[in-house]
Amino acid sequence: MKALSSPQDGIESGGGVWRFPADQPLRLDSGATLSPLEVAYRTYGTLNADRSNAVLVMHALTGDQYLASTHPVTGKPGWWTRVVGRGLPLDPDRFFIICANVLGGCMGTTGPGSTDPATGAPWGLAFPVITIADMVRAQAMLVEALGIETLFAVVGASMGGMQALQWAADYPDRIFSAVCIAGAARHSAQNIAFHEVGRAAIMADPDWRGGAYEAAGVRPEKGLAVARMAAHITYLSEAALQRKFGRELQRDGLSWGFETDFQVESYLRHQGASFVDRFDANSYLYITRALDYFDLGAAYEGQLARAFARARDVRFCVLAFSSDWLYSTAESRDVVRALNAAGCRASFVEIETDKGHDAIFLDEPALDSALRGFLASAAEKRGLA
Amino acid sequence: MKALSSPQDGIESGGGVWRFPADQPLRLDSGATLSPLEVAYRTYGTLNADRSNAVLVMHALTGDQYLASTHPVTGKPGWWTRVVGRGLPLDPDRFFIICANVLGGCMGTTGPGSTDPATGAPWGLAFPVITIADMVRAQAMLVEALGIETLFAVVGASMGGMQALQWAADYPDRIFSAVCIAGAARHSAQNIAFHEVGRAAIMADPDWRGGAYEAAGVRPEKGLAVARMAAHITYLSEAALQRKFGRELQRDGLSWGFETDFQVESYLRHQGASFVDRFDANSYLYITRALDYFDLGAAYEGQLARAFARARDVRFCVLAFSSDWLYSTAESRDVVRALNAAGCRASFVEIETDKGHDAIFLDEPALDSALRGFLASAAEKRGLA
Repeated sequence: MKALSSPQDGIESGGGVWRFPADQPLRLDSGATLSPLEVAYRTYGTLNADRSNAVLVMHALTGDQYLASTHPVTGKPGWWTRVVGRGLPLDPDRFFIICANVLGGCMGTTGPGSTDPATGAPWGLAFPVITIADMVRAQAMLVEALGIETLFAVVGASMGGMQALQWAADYPDRIFSAVCIAGAARHSAQNIAFHEVGRAAIMADPDWRGGAYEAAGVRPEKGLAVARMAAHITYLSEAALQRKFGRELQRDGLSWGFETDFQVESYLRHQGASFVDRFDANSYLYITRALDYFDLGAAYEGQLARAFARARDVRFCVLAFSSDWLYSTAESRDVVRALNAAGCRASFVEIETDKGHDAIFLDEPALDSALRGFLASAAEKRGLA
Repeated sequence: MKALSSPQDGIESGGGVWRFPADQPLRLDSGATLSPLEVAYRTYGTLNADRSNAVLVMHALTGDQYLASTHPVTGKPGWWTRVVGRGLPLDPDRFFIICANVLGGCMGTTGPGSTDPATGAPWGLAFPVITIADMVRAQAMLVEALGIETLFAVVGASMGGMQALQWAADYPDRIFSAVCIAGAARHSAQNIAFHEVGRAAIMADPDWRGGAYEAAGVRPEKGLAVARMAAHITYLSEAALQRKFGRELQRDGLSWGFETDFQVESYLRHQGASFVDRFDANSYLYITRALDYFDLGAAYEGQLARAFARARDVRFCVLAFSSDWLYSTAESRDVVRALNAAGCRASFVEIETDKGHDAIFLDEPALDSALRGFLASAAEKRGLA
């Protein structure tokens, strides 16, 4: 393990890349095994003496481990500095917070851009297709390697929320509580459709080269930017787009051409252009595929409640945003219904907001207070000071 | 005028391409003029002696004049044979029905694929940017050329519905009634955003060649297919996608790869692939731009009601689909509110359906009966037998 430590506003911060030995391969749902497995992660705060204060935060589709640290590529603050920090719901003075780059990702954890030991070249499309459960299995290996038997909480939003549910299904004895924000128990037809558009855009880019772009010294930036633009619309509500941009123009008057006339066009193009600087096209293919394959109840003959049968001692918190049309509140309600049917303790909070799915990352005090309340109550039950 | 006549199930059918002489250029909102203007159209039924039974049907973004005739490229039936035909709401035994390919289109009306008289080559991006009002102006020229002073009705859905509203604003004395189905008085930020994704996908395709693909003997088919895939999602409701496809697989079991595992993926890819056979990429750019520029109230200081001030004698019918999220019922209500404020007669029908925007083209008996009722009542007032 190569430790990287850099203080963040005086907060103890650590992490690095955990390299598992060849005799500890990752067994995948597809039947394949992956070795060597590397997991890149960051930590905030200090593990207490009885190792009971560890929280695993799981990121969304295009997130990474830079939860509360400056991003090494973009130079921007961590993606959840609203929630993670001194005096915030996830306080590093209280919790030992871990965030790992997801399996299949492009920020240090093994993914399609990693070296295939069989060829010495990047995996590309030879990388095995992975699932949300595989991602969680890799996280569980990291958590164990860090010497943590039971996590105080797994906390995730969007794809991270799905991982929180998968943790509860697969490792109920290793978590005390689970928070699923703006998640779902399965990917809907519309979700799959949007992902397919993104994949088609990437694969349509001649610089994608069947996934072997790295060897060719090119990158399918245009295709990846289009994928991001399409996806980004789904992160915002129509109301938020209307409020933020409406039909506001970039300049006085129309261009009578294909310049960016409208502010919303400029915003969307910027989202696409800046995304390709920090993300990898093949990772986007693999992670969207994992999401499409996600259907937590499917392994239990479609009875989602059975997925949670062993999780009766886990405290659940399910949060959803009223204007989220990517993972709607109806889908969160389905999760809560299944948790209740399984006899699990579940709090459900529907947060009224017009910010859509993106509310995860935005100033949404109701999210902060719901998280704070749930975690405080769970911490008390767990005997954390 | 080159007349093409082919009987459709015994219905009198005609049409062709109307070529306006050079001294009748089309004056565009941009300030440019377009000459020579050609308008390709089809007709169904016979114009009565007092020329009072003409109905202009206006097609949607990717539609064409083959309203109730076999499409010459795809070999498929006309796009509105559910509504136009003997015994149907738009009955050619009763009405003389005209449908013209839109300005900027690719089925015979002047568009970016037409020959630029200045160069002898296809216009490409040298074609002037057009608006919905320009499209209507070209239609008005055709209607006048056909010897029709007043249309009994203008009927349009989606972009066609916007044109119906534009007709009412610009030529209120030349229409007796107007039907706007699943339309809106302006394009929202989300609508613009989706169009920008489509344009970005087309322009990202190296075969687009800055719009000059025809001279290069190539076509940006991959980019256009991605544009269509993204747009197609907006035509369907989430409920319809879930009902039609859910998470149903193409084959037994997952492919563990990037094949089309899910039926919804296969459906969407098919939509993209078949679209490029019948549509032109530059036309897609220009027509989406015209839609984005559409804001009927803007020319009246944002007061939509004033756009209809001269249309008090026009009978309006506004129809919307409850699950349409592309042009929502709220947007139709805004239109009705403005019509009422202007003192116009307006019927409003919100049709309960889970089929989304696509309900325009699908089996939706409530649409048929609403159309039939409105047109019958207007025909009576108009003194049509």
